[in-house]
Formats: sequence, C-alpha cells, structure tokens
Amino acid sequence: MKKIGVATTGGDAPGMNAAIRAIVRIASLRNLQVVGFERGWNGLMKNESKLLTPRSVGGILGLGGTILHTARCPEFTKDEGVRKAAQTLSSNHVDGLVVIGGGGSFKGALDLSRETDALIVAVPATIDNDVYGTDETIGFDTAVNTAVTEIDKIRDTAISHERTFIVEVMGRDRGFLALMAGITSGAEIIIVPEIQYEEQKIFQTLKENSQRGKKSSIIVKAEGVGDARLLAKEIEEKTGAEVRISVLGYAQRGGSPTARSRFLASLFGNKAVELLLEAQGNKVVGLQKGQVSNLSLEKSCKTKKSLDLSLLSLATVLAT
Amino acid sequence: MKKIGVATTGGDAPGMNAAIRAIVRIASLRNLQVVGFERGWNGLMKNESKLLTPRSVGGILGLGGTILHTARCPEFTKDEGVRKAAQTLSSNHVDGLVVIGGGGSFKGALDLSRETDALIVAVPATIDNDVYGTDETIGFDTAVNTAVTEIDKIRDTAISHERTFIVEVMGRDRGFLALMAGITSGAEIIIVPEIQYEEQKIFQTLKENSQRGKKSSIIVKAEGVGDARLLAKEIEEKTGAEVRISVLGYAQRGGSPTARSRFLASLFGNKAVELLLEAQGNKVVGLQKGQVSNLSLEKSCKTKKSLDLSLLSLATVLAT
Amino acid sequence: MKKIGVATTGGDAPGMNAAIRAIVRIASLRNLQVVGFERGWNGLMKNESKLLTPRSVGGILGLGGTILHTARCPEFTKDEGVRKAAQTLSSNHVDGLVVIGGGGSFKGALDLSRETDALIVAVPATIDNDVYGTDETIGFDTAVNTAVTEIDKIRDTAISHERTFIVEVMGRDRGFLALMAGITSGAEIIIVPEIQYEEQKIFQTLKENSQRGKKSSIIVKAEGVGDARLLAKEIEEKTGAEVRISVLGYAQRGGSPTARSRFLASLFGNKAVELLLEAQGNKVVGLQKGQVSNLSLEKSCKTKKSLDLSLLSLATVLAT
Amino acid sequence: MKKIGVATTGGDAPGMNAAIRAIVRIASLRNLQVVGFERGWNGLMKNESKLLTPRSVGGILGLGGTILHTARCPEFTKDEGVRKAAQTLSSNHVDGLVVIGGGGSFKGALDLSRETDALIVAVPATIDNDVYGTDETIGFDTAVNTAVTEIDKIRDTAISHERTFIVEVMGRDRGFLALMAGITSGAEIIIVPEIQYEEQKIFQTLKENSQRGKKSSIIVKAEGVGDARLLAKEIEEKTGAEVRISVLGYAQRGGSPTARSRFLASLFGNKAVELLLEAQGNKVVGLQKGQVSNLSLEKSCKTKKSLDLSLLSLATVLAT
Repeated sequence: MKKIGVATTGGDAPGMNAAIRAIVRIASLRNLQVVGFERGWNGLMKNESKLLTPRSVGGILGLGGTILHTARCPEFTKDEGVRKAAQTLSSNHVDGLVVIGGGGSFKGALDLSRETDALIVAVPATIDNDVYGTDETIGFDTAVNTAVTEIDKIRDTAISHERTFIVEVMGRDRGFLALMAGITSGAEIIIVPEIQYEEQKIFQTLKENSQRGKKSSIIVKAEGVGDARLLAKEIEEKTGAEVRISVLGYAQRGGSPTARSRFLASLFGNKAVELLLEAQGNKVVGLQKGQVSNLSLEKSCKTKKSLDLSLLSLATVLAT
Repeated sequence: MKKIGVATTGGDAPGMNAAIRAIVRIASLRNLQVVGFERGWNGLMKNESKLLTPRSVGGILGLGGTILHTARCPEFTKDEGVRKAAQTLSSNHVDGLVVIGGGGSFKGALDLSRETDALIVAVPATIDNDVYGTDETIGFDTAVNTAVTEIDKIRDTAISHERTFIVEVMGRDRGFLALMAGITSGAEIIIVPEIQYEEQKIFQTLKENSQRGKKSSIIVKAEGVGDARLLAKEIEEKTGAEVRISVLGYAQRGGSPTARSRFLASLFGNKAVELLLEAQGNKVVGLQKGQVSNLSLEKSCKTKKSLDLSLLSLATVLAT
Repeated sequence: MKKIGVATTGGDAPGMNAAIRAIVRIASLRNLQVVGFERGWNGLMKNESKLLTPRSVGGILGLGGTILHTARCPEFTKDEGVRKAAQTLSSNHVDGLVVIGGGGSFKGALDLSRETDALIVAVPATIDNDVYGTDETIGFDTAVNTAVTEIDKIRDTAISHERTFIVEVMGRDRGFLALMAGITSGAEIIIVPEIQYEEQKIFQTLKENSQRGKKSSIIVKAEGVGDARLLAKEIEEKTGAEVRISVLGYAQRGGSPTARSRFLASLFGNKAVELLLEAQGNKVVGLQKGQVSNLSLEKSCKTKKSLDLSLLSLATVLAT
Repeated sequence: MKKIGVATTGGDAPGMNAAIRAIVRIASLRNLQVVGFERGWNGLMKNESKLLTPRSVGGILGLGGTILHTARCPEFTKDEGVRKAAQTLSSNHVDGLVVIGGGGSFKGALDLSRETDALIVAVPATIDNDVYGTDETIGFDTAVNTAVTEIDKIRDTAISHERTFIVEVMGRDRGFLALMAGITSGAEIIIVPEIQYEEQKIFQTLKENSQRGKKSSIIVKAEGVGDARLLAKEIEEKTGAEVRISVLGYAQRGGSPTARSRFLASLFGNKAVELLLEAQGNKVVGLQKGQVSNLSLEKSCKTKKSLDLSLLSLATVLAT
C-alpha cells in the first residue's frame, strides 16, 4: 500500500471534512500518499483529483460540507461508469480507496470493488443514519441537534399562539432523524416511514393533550411519510386546533459538525486507513456496541438497519 | 395614572418578553400596578388578565415567545369587539395600555383609542420590521441572525454540491428581512416584494457568476413575492444549474432574543411607561436616528415605511 | 412501590431537568407518586420537598441547570446528616429514591442506602464524565460541545495573531472533558491529570509545528493539572511564541442540553424508574457498550473509571 | 486613485474579514487594484503584502479573525517604523490605505498620514467599541452576543446553586462591552471602569435581592476595574452568599460575526472606498445617528467617547 484515494459521495454530511482530515493525516504518518477525487464518483470516472497533505487539510475539522465536493452521478450506476472509475484507480496506481458517504453510495463502492484490484473501505457519513453496520453515522448527531434547535424555536411560537405545529425533518425512507429529533425535542407525536400512522390516534392524542392543559403540540414527521398539508387540514377539522407547518430544509445537512460528529469522523477515518494497511478491503467502518468495528461492505449493502421502535413508545410517554 | 395594562398582539417576536419585563419593572418602580391581558385582543375583549409583578417577570428576559400569549382575533376588527375591549379597560380601572406588536396590531390599537379614555402606547415588536416610525422593531435583529445562521449552513451544501439554492424567508408584503438576511449572508441575488424582479437578469447573473468561478449561488427571496418552485424550474432550464429550495419557516419567529433585540425591548418598554406617566397617549415608541423617540400612532398606521433600495445595489456588488 | 423521591446533587449538569422530566412522567404513568427534594441532600435532611407531576415538569426538557436546585452539603458527610435524610424518607413514606448527580454524590447515596429501607438508584449526571459504570454521563456531551464552540472561537484569534493559546477546561481530577474537547477541536496538545506531562515535549511539538508552517497552536489543559501561567511563561521563554491563556469557566456547566444529553437523560430516567419497580436498589444506571444497563452502586463508588489513553495518541497525530 | 492598500491592525474583531471583502469588491468594481498588507503595521514596514481580488475574498464574510492577520508592533510607535511604512506605500504606488482596527491603531494611522502622500481612511473594528466618531464599531455586537450567551449559561448554574457570580468581560479601559452585556443579560450589578464602584452599595443590593426572593445574582465586571477575587471574598464575608468567578476570555474576540457586525463591516468598507475615490483622507468612517458618516481622524484620536451612564441606571431598575 503506497497510495490511497479518498472521495465523498452522495449527499453531504457535517463531519465529512473531519473524516478527510483524519484519513490524510493518519495515512501520511504511515507514509501513504493520498489523492482526493473531486465531486464524488465523477472525479473517479473523469480522473479529476488533487494531492492531499497534512497541511492542505488544515483548518477543515470544523467546516460543514466537503472540500472534495460531491455530486449525483447517474452515469456511475452503469457498468461503463464503474469501469472508468476502476481504470482511474489503476492508471493512478491507487492501491486503496476510502469512500465517505451514505448507504446509497456504498452500493456504488461495492460495484466498483468488483472491477478493481484496489481495496475499498467505506466510511458511513450521512445525516440519515441509515447504514447497516454502524449504530451511528458521521453527521447524524449534528443534524439531530440542528433539528432540535429549530424545533425549540418553533415551540416558542407554538406555545405563544397555542397552536399545533407539524415539523417536517429530512428522511425519505427512514425515520432515524425524525425519531431522535422528536424524542429529544419533546415532540408530542412522531411520524416515521417505518410505521403506518393512524390519524385517529393522532386526533385523540391531541384532544387528550388539550384536555390535560397542553394547548400546543409539536408533531415531528419524516418527509417521506404522509402529506403535511393534508394532515394539517384534517387535524384542524377533527380537533379544532390551529395547525401550522414548518419544513426544516437543507440547513439540516450543513453547519459546523458537533463534537460527536467530529469524534466519529476521526475514529472512522483512522480505522479506514488501518484496515487498508492490514490489506482488508470491502469493509464498512462502524460503531457497534460503543466500539469502532468493521463489517463486510456486501453485508452492509444488503441489510436493512432497523429502527428501535421501543423509543417511539418511550417518546410518547415522555411527552405526556 | 395608577394602573396600566399590557398585551402582546399579532405574530410573536423574540424580545416581547424582554419588553414585558421592562414595562413591569419600570412601572412598578414608579408605583404603577400592571395587569397583563392574555392572548392579545382576546384577553381585552374577554377580560382575561393577570397581575404582573417584578418577580413574576423574573427569568423571562432571554425567552422567545410571549408569556402573555397572542392570537389572531378577527372579532376585534369589528366595532363590537373594540367596544368590549374598551369596557374591560374601564371596568378594571386601567388608565394606560401598552400594546406590543406589529403594524397590523397598531391599527387595532388606534381603533381602541377612539373608544376608551385610557391612554394607549404602542411598542413595535415584529420580525417583519414594517412599522413606520422606527428604524428597527424588537425581534428583527434576532430573526435576521436566525436566517443568516441557516443560510450559512445551506451554503455548506450549496458549495459542496455546486448548486444554486433559493432560500425563502418570512415577509408577505415587505422585504426588510429578506434584504438584511441577504446582504449579511452574502446572497448573490435578493428578491423583495417592493421591486418587480426580472428573471432575465437573474439568469444572467447566475451565468456570469458561474463563468467567474462561482459554482454555487444563494437566492434569498421574501415569501410574498414570486413562486419558488416555478423560479427554480426556470433557472434550471435557462442556466443548466441544479436548483434546490429551502423555506425557512417559523423558527425565524422564535428563539432567545439577541442582545440587540433585548436592548431595544428594554429601551422601548422604558419609554412606553415614561410616555404614559407624562400622559402622552396615542404614540408609537421607536428608534429614530439612533435615538429612542416617539411618533403619533395615527401617523405610524397611515404611513408606509420605505425600504432602502440602495442596500439592494450594495448587496449585488458585495456578492460579485 | 407507591411513592418515589428524586433529588439532584453535587454540581449541576445540563440534562438534569430532562432526567427529572423523564422520571416524573414515567413514574406517573406507572402510578407512582413523585416528590422532588430541593437543594440536593439539604432537602432530604431538612424535609423540603414538593410534589412533581407530569404538568409541573412541562417545558423543562431543554433548560440547563436543575429546577430542584442543588448545593454543597458538608453536613451530609457526617452520620447524623445521613440519618436525618433516612428519617425524611421514612416519614414521607418514600419507597424509592433517584439521586441524579456525579461520582461524589454517589458516595452519599451509598451511605444513605445503609440507613434506609427505601431503594436507591443513582443516575450519573456530571460534565466530568467520571462515573464508573457508564461510558457517558448526562451533561458531558453538552459540556464538550460548549468547550469546542469556545475553542473554535479562540482559534480565530490564535490564527489571526499567530499565537499559542492555553485553554483551561473544567476537570479537577480527571481529563475526560479535556481529552474529548481537545481531540474534537483539533488541539495540538492536550494535558490531562492522568498523565505526567513533559514540558520538553511540549516545547518540541510547538517548535516542530512552527517549522511545518503552523504559526498558532492550541493547548487544551484540564484545570487540575499544572499551572497555566507558569506553563505560558516557560513556553514563551523556550520557543519565542506569544502565549495567551483562556479559562473556560462555569459556562461549561450550563446551557440548553444537546440532543445527546437529553437522550441519555431520558433513557437513564426511564431505566431508574424501571429498576425501582423491579425492586432493584443500590444501582447506578449507565450506558455500557451502547446499551442502557446498570451496575452495583457500591462497585461504581469504589472503582476508578479509566481514561482511554489511545485517544491521546490519536489526537496528537490528527493535529499534526 | 489606482491602487489602494488594506491592513488589519491591533486586536482582531469579528467582521474584519467582512470589511476586507467589502473593500476589495467595491474597489475592484471601481477599477482600483487592492493589496493587503499582512500582520498589521508589520506588513507595511516590511513590505509584505498580497494582491486581493473579488475571488480571493470569497467565503470570508462569515469567518472570525482576519485573513490578513494582525500583530502587536512596538516598532511602529517610533518614527523610523512609520517612515518605513510610508516608504512601502510609496514604492508600491499605493495611493490610498484603509486601516481596519481599534482606537489604538488609529493613532498609528494618524502618525503615518503625516509621512505619506497616500490618503488614509480608518475603519473602526474592535470589540471594545471605544472609537470616538462612531456609535458602534465592527465586532462589538458579536462580542456582546457572545458574552450574553455565556452569561445566560452561567445563570443556569447560578440559579441551580443559588450563588452569586462575578463575570469578567473584556475591557481594560472602557466599559462599553460590560454595560451592554450586563443590561442585555439582566445582570443585577454592572461594574465599569468609568465609574468608581461602591462596595457597600453592592453588598446592599445583593442583600435586598436576597430578601426579595432573588437567591442568585450576576455581577458583570469589566476586566480593567477592581479585582474579582478580592471582591468575591468581600461579598462572601459581608453577605454570606457563595460567590464564584468566571472570566470570559478570548472567545469574546472570535467567532462568526453576527448579522449586524457583517452589516456594519459592509457599510463601512463601502464608505471607506468612496471616501478614497472622493480624495478625502484622514477620515474615520462611522455610524452616527443611524447614518454612515465620517469624521476627522485627528479628532477621533483626540476625543474620548463617552459611555451613556443613564443606561447603567436603567440596567439597575430592570434587574430589580
């Protein structure tokens, strides 16, 4: 192992830069050269990269986004795209590649691993926290805190106006962010894609809250489930409450990473380089039972991470 | 003057509590009794109030929202509603009333002043900053900072993905918040209701930016002008850029007030009590040329505050 | 089990209120009555308490500090104090007591357990993270983030002035906070009480950094080790660098808890009530290997939690 | 006017980068070349500068510190140093110089103006707010908000422990920061260098607060007046209160500038270039009566800005 590559793929997540920094500095110490491919898979396909050194990653630990940029890359889902990327690795004499991204990106990494001799290690970084093989992804803690900060502010208005708010957080397929933001902001109701929600129950909960003296409520809903406007209208009709909607948008993906996101990024980046040095490829780095560990990339891609539904019940009781 | 009332009306704004605290503590020192009417005009019409003392307003200086609550009150736009409120003031022996709210609420205050002997002083508190007679309203600085913090985060994603973002901030009729948030977040384009925007110019600016090496741009748009989805689609068609939309919602109205919002609230609250003690009614407290001052309530209601358009040009140059 | 008590003891930590809320709401659902003892052990000794209900703990999830107050209590270290507290429990028919606090407080809880029939469960909440039996205490994540936010700001000045800063964080005996704040803020040097630091090494590291182009450095030091002024002076003499000191003070103990601190508080509070309902006393609730678990109170009191020294080495490499 | 220089001098302040950005972009639009001198007066004396372009100041609007660096420069207080700087301006054909800094730096600017033909305009940027000729300096609003955020956190601990805190904020000679941070954080007592404080009054106020039910108090003290330890000890002896000290350190000088600091920086930077283009030298840009204006540099240097003492009285009443 003499030269490794690193790329950030898929949606950006706070802490990606912290991971790049860790990879470059650990690798440099171990006498590996590091090149950064730009704009995710695009840089790999088009052979666009730059040398990364301990100095060139100075000052990025606390920055949101990714200095390597990232982009969607439909071409990479086709065989030809993957072959081009493999060729780039080979022509640049890259022996190992660290892919920093979310679950979707890891499928690409798996495809690429079949066309290249370079070892591939995946580092989970996504605010969706939907990667099997790790209890937590880089960026998740930051996004949760961003959402909670927003919801705390919205609650000021909810209480002042004695209104119900539907707050939509990111999460097309999975409810990790909605669940964690909901429980830690004290949301009265949490709606996640994993569970069919029952409108009647929602109406009932809101009515009971009102009777108990809770004049305002917060509903945290993942974007991928239900229709906020429709739900708002029905709640207004059925309960008489005034309902407002607030969609927490892309700010959830940005911002300076929290200490925890920076910490995970540092641990994961370190582990990724270690795995490459041990000639272990096709791995996903992760946090399991509080320990940094690793798992087969294939298994991670093929397995759906489960949501802890007992937390939903706990959230309901806590917001009584 | 022995007893005064205070109410928060219209949309809530950060710093309303700081104003209540100032009014209560200054008034108490001057041997005035203070009652707080609840839920805006509703409390006045329905005679729902509570006694406020220096101790009961302890710990609220840094809280968003309003401890007196606020609510829409369509009934108050009718003569009967106004008369009920006047009766409440009279039956409670309230000699003076401080109304904390936005421009819309002040019209109600003006109506009420015609039906009551109690002196009325209005304290401008709204994130819209659209009250004539003051350079700045309580809450405006907080909302601007909230928006800028969000936009700074969105820019992380904009840069990482080399995308253009349309960020919609609050402001149905007026562009004060959009203009100030835009200029201080370095937005490449700012769209306000006061100016007819030209799509061709926007396309051209974005293209020129791209040619100069700016791969991502932020468009800050007030909610009351144009249609974000339509605009996004047209920009994508005309410039080839990827465009995303983020609507900064109700969080702009909440949160702990900034130092400046707390400061204005303290100054304005103090001035409101002083005016009542001087038997000056029908006034709006304000900041003019850096000094706390006051203006006729009628004039404030009837005059449209102008937006400083030279700042729009400055913003454009600064974001070159 | 019909009635339980709850008290916050020792130094306050962000998330104590979130734990109180969880305990009260979970307990109420399980038909337990809850009384809160005020000012830590003082309230237990002097029989000062108030009834806590699901409504009375509304709105406290995001508040720093503790609504039950806390205080030092030298009297409680004596047998008589402990006996008075036991009597209070007995005369109030309190069957179970949840003590929320740090390692020091737990020794008191252990003493009390020997004098009372009430079951005692301890919930670790301290920014020091120095409780054996849990990987993380309530409040630790918040304090780390507060420290990192401050250090990020100090780095602005360090870089602008090309100076070295010694930043002193809380931690009289243990270096958990210094280590975690140091690694996540990218501190060039971290000094903890657990390791004898070598000045010569520090001088050398700073010189090497300077030669590599790092004109400014941050030294994060736990308050309990070394003397910041002396060290600053010696660094100035030996390296020629300008050195400044910043002591992060009590703000590290306050502020709205992070999502993670709120989450731990919710899980721990829930677990504490469960243990009491299962008639399991003399326990410390904790997070072990990513799971909520529990441990003998006695073992927790008698065992020193170890600091992961491998993280110190990692931090050094990451800040190259 | 073909070429202008810009330098940041004295202590750094949040918004200096925003001012640099404004100056460079406005000047470039007006076809002026801009060079940035590095490390304050040092760069001027040693002829160390770099070309600044609209692109090279991209992304710095929200960054704390200064990309041009700054440093103390004792040599510049001597005639020879000033002459060297004048020579640098002349040999580089710099026709105008914008000096961004605090009151101390402006004396240097005045000295330099006597040795050079280049026109000099000063832009006030310091967290101390101690520049005559402007109601507010760049960075002041940010520092106030940083201090208030810290004090809000300290109050959590103060209330929980029912303690009195002395919070020391920056300000060696002047109390602008202490006064504004004190009034907006609701400090019970504010101590500034401009007023001889009376210990007896402090003891009395604290006792009265305690009798009125205020068990905790915050004293905000500028660093340049009194001795925190001594005062703490005396308060403990005279009132029986537990007193703790927290020194808000260098974090007050860093961090991302608030919207207001960015706004002032943009306005001031714009005005500075305008003045140079109008061939008006020896000026200080400022905000007077809410309007951007300018004043003779000499008058600014020779006049002491007064502190509004009526605000001290107001603060006392507000914190009753």
